[in-house]
Amino acid sequence: MNINTNYLKLNNNYLFSVIEQKINAHKAANPERTIISLGVGDVTLPLAPVVTEALHRAVTEMESSATFRGYGNEQGYLFLREAVCGYYSKKGVELHPDEIFINDGAGSDLGNILDIFFDKNTALIPTPVYPAYVDINTMAGNDIAYMDGNIKNNFLPMPDKNLHADIIYLCSPNNPTGAVYTKKQLKTWVEYALENDAVIIFDSAYESFVQDNELPTSIYQIDRAKECVIEICSLSKTAGFTGTRCGYTVVPQELIRGGESLNKLWLRNRATKTNGISYIIQRGAEAVFTEEGLKQVQENIKYYLNNAKHITETLKKLNIWHTGGENAPYVWFKCPMPSWDFFDYLLEKTDIIGIPGAGFGENGNGFFRLSAFGKSEDVRIAMERIARCKI
Amino acid sequence: MNINTNYLKLNNNYLFSVIEQKINAHKAANPERTIISLGVGDVTLPLAPVVTEALHRAVTEMESSATFRGYGNEQGYLFLREAVCGYYSKKGVELHPDEIFINDGAGSDLGNILDIFFDKNTALIPTPVYPAYVDINTMAGNDIAYMDGNIKNNFLPMPDKNLHADIIYLCSPNNPTGAVYTKKQLKTWVEYALENDAVIIFDSAYESFVQDNELPTSIYQIDRAKECVIEICSLSKTAGFTGTRCGYTVVPQELIRGGESLNKLWLRNRATKTNGISYIIQRGAEAVFTEEGLKQVQENIKYYLNNAKHITETLKKLNIWHTGGENAPYVWFKCPMPSWDFFDYLLEKTDIIGIPGAGFGENGNGFFRLSAFGKSEDVRIAMERIARCKI
Repeated sequence: MNINTNYLKLNNNYLFSVIEQKINAHKAANPERTIISLGVGDVTLPLAPVVTEALHRAVTEMESSATFRGYGNEQGYLFLREAVCGYYSKKGVELHPDEIFINDGAGSDLGNILDIFFDKNTALIPTPVYPAYVDINTMAGNDIAYMDGNIKNNFLPMPDKNLHADIIYLCSPNNPTGAVYTKKQLKTWVEYALENDAVIIFDSAYESFVQDNELPTSIYQIDRAKECVIEICSLSKTAGFTGTRCGYTVVPQELIRGGESLNKLWLRNRATKTNGISYIIQRGAEAVFTEEGLKQVQENIKYYLNNAKHITETLKKLNIWHTGGENAPYVWFKCPMPSWDFFDYLLEKTDIIGIPGAGFGENGNGFFRLSAFGKSEDVRIAMERIARCKI
Repeated sequence: MNINTNYLKLNNNYLFSVIEQKINAHKAANPERTIISLGVGDVTLPLAPVVTEALHRAVTEMESSATFRGYGNEQGYLFLREAVCGYYSKKGVELHPDEIFINDGAGSDLGNILDIFFDKNTALIPTPVYPAYVDINTMAGNDIAYMDGNIKNNFLPMPDKNLHADIIYLCSPNNPTGAVYTKKQLKTWVEYALENDAVIIFDSAYESFVQDNELPTSIYQIDRAKECVIEICSLSKTAGFTGTRCGYTVVPQELIRGGESLNKLWLRNRATKTNGISYIIQRGAEAVFTEEGLKQVQENIKYYLNNAKHITETLKKLNIWHTGGENAPYVWFKCPMPSWDFFDYLLEKTDIIGIPGAGFGENGNGFFRLSAFGKSEDVRIAMERIARCKI
């Protein structure tokens, strides 16, 4: 019996539990003070009415034999895959429903997709980054190469032509920095991937926050990206689905590696390892992509972006280096001390919780993430406190 | 770039697509005849009222900020894990909520669980069997050893002490045969697993069909099973969740391999690779385990078992060797010719669809599976046709 000893190489990810302990200690010492969390990237607005109406309708269908649904297609219902294609079409990207795989949120497929690749590939991962990218590649036994995000490159690292990579993780708009790659920059990444016979895993979970028409909302807006990219997206942030769970993974037919269609390998994987996503949830997701649905979810996104604007304007006034917040729900700023010290300092001085940049990797140290997913009134009060304290 | 070439070793699983082609050809040639499907193991009765009420309530909670739910626990909400523990308690099995992992149906975790084991383990798999067991182990690069099910052992193979295995797949009540291991037989399996430092993956998806109080409904009813078994269950058949998607995986704290807690490894896997199951669906699942819920789903199970009884009584009258159907929704019988020939024969003579046993592996050839998940009226007509045709 061999267990997967790669798991023993994982760093114990204490980020959120350490934060929780610190909050509890602070609460115990200062029971009269009101803590505001701009920490965890979880939405707070309820589901859009078109979505809950669709969910109720689907539940009602499950109540009678005539409309009951049993096993669905492992790849997702065609109605939802067609709706996703329609959404891409509005971005100028033409996809076939066979290229869409409905998932239960980006997190699962970002990890599961490694199944179709062998271990001992080299994964190229930015630092700072969403910590799961490193963990899933460690679990899979891949070699990991890092690319540095820093102030100089606005935390948008570009390829090093001297370095070979097989699998490349890009997230744009970025978590944790909120920075967004331009089309020109993504073109360079696509060229690099094609030269290296690599596959880019493009995490577009925050694409719906892009307001600047010049910025890409899908890497498939770049020529030849279909030959080298798997794009993984979620409705978690687009439509407040963090607790409802649905998203989609795009594996283009043009994506061939080792002479094999990755679309076919992934289809085989899904058909064997899943029975698809709940019919009820897929009907809720379908509603997001209707005209009325997109209008309703954009209202929520504008609400969060308005929060982000409050945050960036405060930082501007305080003359603090920052990025993100314009086309993303996260603001990333330079703090005047190591991240964890600043976490303690901010909590003590203002009762505000954010995420220490060091939690996202080495290059995050000295930086701090604030989330715009809170309630407007909380964000307003938090920014008043920060302005007063003059961090 | 290395792709996972294990995928190229997979048999193309044409079982259901071949069946579909044959049905379409039969329909085209005989448009006036009424086909009855006793093939695919999918439920037909709608969700129980307590479940749809709970689903509606959960959707309503998602409509307002005050009750909205974002990210949940990756392992599943405590309310549902406690409900599962309560269900086990009624079987005389005491589990802690930390040992329960809510899944989206047994299919996913049966495959995903291999992540915590290294490749080059030897998986011991029965033949005939649910085809995914073989496929997931092939994908993972494991060696596969088969154990023969046959009439002599009532398709319930027992361990061969001369053969070493690391991972053992058992499914009881069995798919496709409907046969059920006794407690004594499972005790022998637990002893074998302990001797071999192996882990049994126990697929208990059909446990709720067991009516005979002497038969086990969980392998944890066997002494020391917690030291060597991961039990994976689903509400798909228990509560008609094939399209709703929810189940649970039990990884006991006592399960240690290579000096590591498999519960901890699996928790780390889930925390990294998932964001948990939809809150809405978990509330629906919770309702199954209420007193009223269990009563309502048992009514559906009795309906299906009544269908199974019709099938077995017909086979008895025709003097055909068969197993299953008493404590399982499947009936497995010996056909007078190779499975695929019999499929064609039965379709031509009676317009009835079943599943050729050969689709479940070599030892299934010459046998045939009928599912009791159809409508009673259809089953009644189908059995009349079979009795008349005297297969």
